[in-house]
Amino acid sequence: MKYVGVDIGGMSVKCGIAESDGRLLFKKSAPIRTEVEDVVILKDIAALIDEVLRESGTDKSEICGLGIGCPGSVNDGEGVVRYSCNINFRNTDMVGIMRGLTGIENVRVSNDANCAALGETLFGAGNGAKNSVLVTLGTGVGTGIIVDGKLLTGNKSAGAEGGHIQINMGGAVCGCGKRGHYEAYASATALISQVKAACIKHPESLLAKYAEENGIDGKTVFICAEQGDKTAIATLKKYIKYVGQGLVVFANIFFPEVIIIGGGVSNAGDRLIKPLQRMVSKEAYGAQYAPKIKVVAATLKNDAGIIGAAALCM
Amino acid sequence: MKYVGVDIGGMSVKCGIAESDGRLLFKKSAPIRTEVEDVVILKDIAALIDEVLRESGTDKSEICGLGIGCPGSVNDGEGVVRYSCNINFRNTDMVGIMRGLTGIENVRVSNDANCAALGETLFGAGNGAKNSVLVTLGTGVGTGIIVDGKLLTGNKSAGAEGGHIQINMGGAVCGCGKRGHYEAYASATALISQVKAACIKHPESLLAKYAEENGIDGKTVFICAEQGDKTAIATLKKYIKYVGQGLVVFANIFFPEVIIIGGGVSNAGDRLIKPLQRMVSKEAYGAQYAPKIKVVAATLKNDAGIIGAAALCM
Repeated sequence: MKYVGVDIGGMSVKCGIAESDGRLLFKKSAPIRTEVEDVVILKDIAALIDEVLRESGTDKSEICGLGIGCPGSVNDGEGVVRYSCNINFRNTDMVGIMRGLTGIENVRVSNDANCAALGETLFGAGNGAKNSVLVTLGTGVGTGIIVDGKLLTGNKSAGAEGGHIQINMGGAVCGCGKRGHYEAYASATALISQVKAACIKHPESLLAKYAEENGIDGKTVFICAEQGDKTAIATLKKYIKYVGQGLVVFANIFFPEVIIIGGGVSNAGDRLIKPLQRMVSKEAYGAQYAPKIKVVAATLKNDAGIIGAAALCM
Repeated sequence: MKYVGVDIGGMSVKCGIAESDGRLLFKKSAPIRTEVEDVVILKDIAALIDEVLRESGTDKSEICGLGIGCPGSVNDGEGVVRYSCNINFRNTDMVGIMRGLTGIENVRVSNDANCAALGETLFGAGNGAKNSVLVTLGTGVGTGIIVDGKLLTGNKSAGAEGGHIQINMGGAVCGCGKRGHYEAYASATALISQVKAACIKHPESLLAKYAEENGIDGKTVFICAEQGDKTAIATLKKYIKYVGQGLVVFANIFFPEVIIIGGGVSNAGDRLIKPLQRMVSKEAYGAQYAPKIKVVAATLKNDAGIIGAAALCM
């Protein structure tokens, strides 16, 4: 059984063909025109799907479903994208329009973070867990949550906005304008701000010198900590504590089998994951009586969105 | 169809007979001996069930199930109470033992806050909502969460500990020993501490005088705020903001149709509920695009636990 998965992003659209065991048979991406009319954006995507089918030698009759992951507020049940910050979708009937454009009957859409969570949980780091939380540390913090094998979406799919939970009253300002949100502490963007502040405070540090020469990105502090720089180590320790504090919230609410860390920052591997595992094991409520929650890095990486989108239809 | 519901508490056990539409036909309570062997506690409960059946003129053959709500860490799937802070349950096979003692085959157990959430959601303030969060403001803060019509319990039922989510880094110490948890700000216990602090700071206030004469409980600040006392109004405003901040976290994660406020503090009614509704409507992420989340006071009050326990079997 073959499925088409589409992962819409602010810069490009990825499209692939996945088997029902999660194997990705073929994939291709194309730039996205975010400012044109929504129907035009979707026509571009339909054209990309046609290319993928043609180039992979797949006949449309073999396709059992088309799943789409889209950033923004998506009403899964109605198949409508309510709005998307950076792409011109406003109450766009994505399922209806894509059915018409592709002739595929079984079309579903969900938020892109949800799709990634589904992909990672079923076919990646989650190893088929029934309950999981994917926390994506990128420009923002996205969360996708699986409860009892199903995506948690909330009423009309407005939920699972785990980046916007308050972890620190009156604290750092979040991208959404509110204060103290998890995203304002744990995103890659927040990490970069924290590194900048540390460089200003400790201009003598390796971190400051390295940053001056190479600029700062999500890897900077890990590289310098690896070399034993005290400022980098202290900055990283604080950042990891912030990330962990959100994980403990998810642990106490969901007590999933597994928490999966995705996004660019997760490439740091054990230096990030091991202390997070320790923190969750120690601080989750009732952890001494309850089963262990595993903390792991995402494994499907950039393919999680395509595979998870395809999985919406499985 | 009739069901027996049992609500175990630290002071007493409540037992009732409920119809499948949630009507409570009969109820009775008895003190609990919390220190004796777990089997002995359960024998007392079985005796109470017998009394309830006898006094209500119900034949055991009419009973379709026995549901039990118990404080502490409960593994719903296995029917085992892992531990309970104030009652001598330690890995107690509650379902197995109660089956043996009562001869009722269909026996289920869940955490007491979960049962209350089920009762309120199905038959009380939730009005049959598919997604709801019950937040009980009492000695601690309990949460019971319904997702898609089912209790959220997490892996081995260790989740839904919404009182122990961190809302303020390094903040007030929680009953569990950790800092900054929601319970440390929003419980009735926390409210009483906040009122005490306000009385010390403003000995000239009506609040301080009233507290001196009558002592402080969960109602004190509401009574004095009603009379226009500035200190009481300011203290209450702050408390409500704390409570609301947790609700916004639940809103952003679950986006339920309804958030139900229970526990003694919820008796304050509109003076508590209206500002909480405003806060959730204003601060929930994407609230301008998403359906409204209703905030309401619990209506079943002390019966929610019995009715919800019975509903475990429905």
